[in-house]
Amino acid sequence: MIEHLCVIGVGLIGGSLARALREAGHCREVVGCGRRADGLEKAKALGVVDSYTTDPAEAVRGAEMVVLSVPMGAFPAVLGQIAGHLEPDAVITDVGSTKGAAVEAARQGLVDRFRSFVPGHPIAGTERSGVEASFAELFQERRVILTPTAETERAATDKVAAMWKAAGAEVVEMGVEHHDRVLAGTSHLPHVLAFNLVDTLARWEEQEEIFAYAAGGFRDFTRIASSDPVMWRDICLTNRAAILNALADFSTQMADLARAIDAGDGERIEEVFRRAKAARDKFCE
Amino acid sequence: MIEHLCVIGVGLIGGSLARALREAGHCREVVGCGRRADGLEKAKALGVVDSYTTDPAEAVRGAEMVVLSVPMGAFPAVLGQIAGHLEPDAVITDVGSTKGAAVEAARQGLVDRFRSFVPGHPIAGTERSGVEASFAELFQERRVILTPTAETERAATDKVAAMWKAAGAEVVEMGVEHHDRVLAGTSHLPHVLAFNLVDTLARWEEQEEIFAYAAGGFRDFTRIASSDPVMWRDICLTNRAAILNALADFSTQMADLARAIDAGDGERIEEVFRRAKAARDKFCE
Repeated sequence: MIEHLCVIGVGLIGGSLARALREAGHCREVVGCGRRADGLEKAKALGVVDSYTTDPAEAVRGAEMVVLSVPMGAFPAVLGQIAGHLEPDAVITDVGSTKGAAVEAARQGLVDRFRSFVPGHPIAGTERSGVEASFAELFQERRVILTPTAETERAATDKVAAMWKAAGAEVVEMGVEHHDRVLAGTSHLPHVLAFNLVDTLARWEEQEEIFAYAAGGFRDFTRIASSDPVMWRDICLTNRAAILNALADFSTQMADLARAIDAGDGERIEEVFRRAKAARDKFCE
Repeated sequence: MIEHLCVIGVGLIGGSLARALREAGHCREVVGCGRRADGLEKAKALGVVDSYTTDPAEAVRGAEMVVLSVPMGAFPAVLGQIAGHLEPDAVITDVGSTKGAAVEAARQGLVDRFRSFVPGHPIAGTERSGVEASFAELFQERRVILTPTAETERAATDKVAAMWKAAGAEVVEMGVEHHDRVLAGTSHLPHVLAFNLVDTLARWEEQEEIFAYAAGGFRDFTRIASSDPVMWRDICLTNRAAILNALADFSTQMADLARAIDAGDGERIEEVFRRAKAARDKFCE
């Protein structure tokens, strides 16, 4: 149970977490914080937060749990603003998609309170953004990955884990680097590919009206290209090495496959497609 | 109205077309043809066809409309088998995803009956295959592209257009090359990328358990990698040049974006993502 929850960045994730914890009766009071008062006013009107402020230092006053759910590019500034104002027993966590950068920002921004920071990443979301898109069930049967460091207090990790479980999620722990490598493959690379494909085709669009002839497969494939550009820019900037590694791996195999297509090597093409189908069917069974 | 319809290849597309035409009362009798009797027996049991044979020459006897819905690699063989057995007034059409290769196969296989061949492509489908996956509503509000050549009889094209309209589709006509270029972008390239991504990640899987941490975005993005490997192999083999062109375009832009990520050029990354999101949101509005 959290008496006083502070959510900095009340968008899809922050808003959905506040809704889920309220519905579960796992928190009593929610203070929202963000840069724009109009978004926060909307969050209040929707019943997602009880009150709000645009000042992070004020927002964390009295809070026993502080959830950072702003784009990762804003982490250093926000952490610097809250560091001197945290309650002695406050636990701080985040929902950023890359954990190496979150840990680094927290280490520098929180200094001696770094031990109270629990790096977290809910594997959930939709292509929509903003508090209007938030809903209490977002984390049901989803995983939340926590990547505590050697310095992180066990009690802090346990408290964050309990919060996510109350929101309906399954909590797993893994190392920071492992997290960033895995997510580069299953999340960051697919987003980069989808954004790049749609942008490539948008340049053809004028001459060809190509989107008029796109079917359901294309719609599904490009859904993630409707995601928030700023959030994804920050993910690319904060998980550069792992994303570029994954992309290099993808591109090497893509070049192989292109050579097989060019050579008319049906056997090789079919082999790749069969392996992919088997892996995808297994993953989705 | 079609008195006697012959569907060669009773899978997702051929089966759904037969179902749709029956429901619309647009055909009286349906004969199915395929390589394997067990699949055809299933089609008959499901009420998709009235009778069946594994001999294409026999299947087209008495048929006023012959729909070729086998993988494109089988076109030359099947066209050669039916050519001498078609009724004098029979119209032949196909549902192949690449039209240049379909036209070429029909020109060579049908010889003097080429004028009765109407190249067609329903922009519809799911990642599933087989007659069990077929359903009458598949073509509702979907587009069917017909690419008649200068030699194609107008009456044949009109008859095929009427058939698709009866199945619920909107019919558009375009040139063969234009079709193959557009579809390379919106359908063939996305499939190749999805197959290649899943196969790349499947190689990581053992060490990393990466699929365990994949979210809904990945599921959507890779849905098309569950498509039929043989059908997609044949599409790659029959639309090589256009697919490789589209891939080259994609790869050039991908390399640009990778350089921006490597350089930490947030402005450039955000610009690409914003353009992609705008194009995708507009296309899906």
